[in-house]
Parts: sequence; structure tokens; C-alpha cells
Amino acid sequence: MPGPFHDARAAAVFKADKLGKVSLFESARMFCDVYALMPGQSQAGHVHADNDKLYVLLEGRCRVTVGPESRTLAAGELAVAAAGVEHGLHNDGPEPVKLLAIMAPHPSFKG
Amino acid sequence: MPGPFHDARAAAVFKADKLGKVSLFESARMFCDVYALMPGQSQAGHVHADNDKLYVLLEGRCRVTVGPESRTLAAGELAVAAAGVEHGLHNDGPEPVKLLAIMAPHPSFKG
Repeated sequence: MPGPFHDARAAAVFKADKLGKVSLFESARMFCDVYALMPGQSQAGHVHADNDKLYVLLEGRCRVTVGPESRTLAAGELAVAAAGVEHGLHNDGPEPVKLLAIMAPHPSFKG
Repeated sequence: MPGPFHDARAAAVFKADKLGKVSLFESARMFCDVYALMPGQSQAGHVHADNDKLYVLLEGRCRVTVGPESRTLAAGELAVAAAGVEHGLHNDGPEPVKLLAIMAPHPSFKG
């Protein structure tokens, strides 16, 4: 990690073929990534049995699904997917999206 | 918790005598609070021996100290205080500040 302070939006990296992920911090206790989704890109619905996850919108508008509910979130809004609850992302709008994905504990920390 | 989606800035509550804290989510694994600091308000430097903490700026500009480093952060910027590293806040500017405080694991979850 380059230090304790991060400009999350500046750290985001878009990829042509799938959502871009950049790690800002990780430990056994948690990770904090910045995700970048071009229009049309998604994170397919999935479940973490023993990990809570937050999505915190930084830029753009993104459709977030948690369990049976789906909503388009903007900067400053967040979604909580508690352990065991299915969650996913779909950028169904015209703008690029940047958001934080924060999970606790880390599901696969290597040290 | 009122559901999986939150407008964190709308949920913030300012207090006259000290920084305001509102819980958006908590479990044994983590908590996510929104903090509100009027100009001049602070969170004194402190350490969590076994918990990582993130501060994610939502609105305004706030001076954040992590270990020996101090920086004024704006919306979209964040600070990481890994376990054992002293951290604190001081709103030394003219604007109200709203930020997320996220900690993992929760230091005192009551279920």
C-alpha cells in the first residue's frame, strides 16, 4: 500500500472487457477495492457466506442488487450486502461508474 | 437496519457539542457509521489494536491524521488506519463535513 491516503476516483482503472478492480488496502480483517464499470459492464450476482460487503458509489450511477431489491445509486449512496445475501452490479446507464467495494473479513488474504 | 440501501449524506446528523455518529450497518464483522463534523469539531487521536478503520470523505474537507501523517481530504478520498496505527479527525475548515467511518471487525458488537 502506498500510504494511508488515497484519491479513490483517481486510482480507478477501467478495462475494456470487464469491470476494473484496484486494491487500495487489504488485510486479513478487510479489503477496500475501487471498481470501475464502463456502461454495460456488470458484476454478476454472487454470495459470500461469511463476509459482509459494502458498495459505496463515488462517481456515476449504477444499478445495485442486494437480495430481492435493486436500485440505481449515485455518489454518496451505498449498499450493504450482509453475509449470505446475494449481490451484484450492473452499469445500465450512459456514464462510467466508480465505486468502493469493501469486504470484511477478507475472503482470501495471503499476507 | 432499514434496508440495504442508504443515502449516507442524508443520514448524517450534526450535533452542537461533538461530532455526530449514525450507524448505517453493523455486525460482528464490521460497522459502517456516517460521521458529521461541524467546523472546529474533532475525533481525538486513538488506536484500535485489532481493528482496521477506513474514513471515506463524502462532503466538505476534513483534516485526517494517520500515524505521523496528516492531510486534508475531500469527497472521494479516503484514509486507512490499519490496526495499531493512531488516527483522528479535525474539521479545521469552514464547511460542515460528512464522512463514512468503517471498521473491521466490530470492536463491540452486541448482536
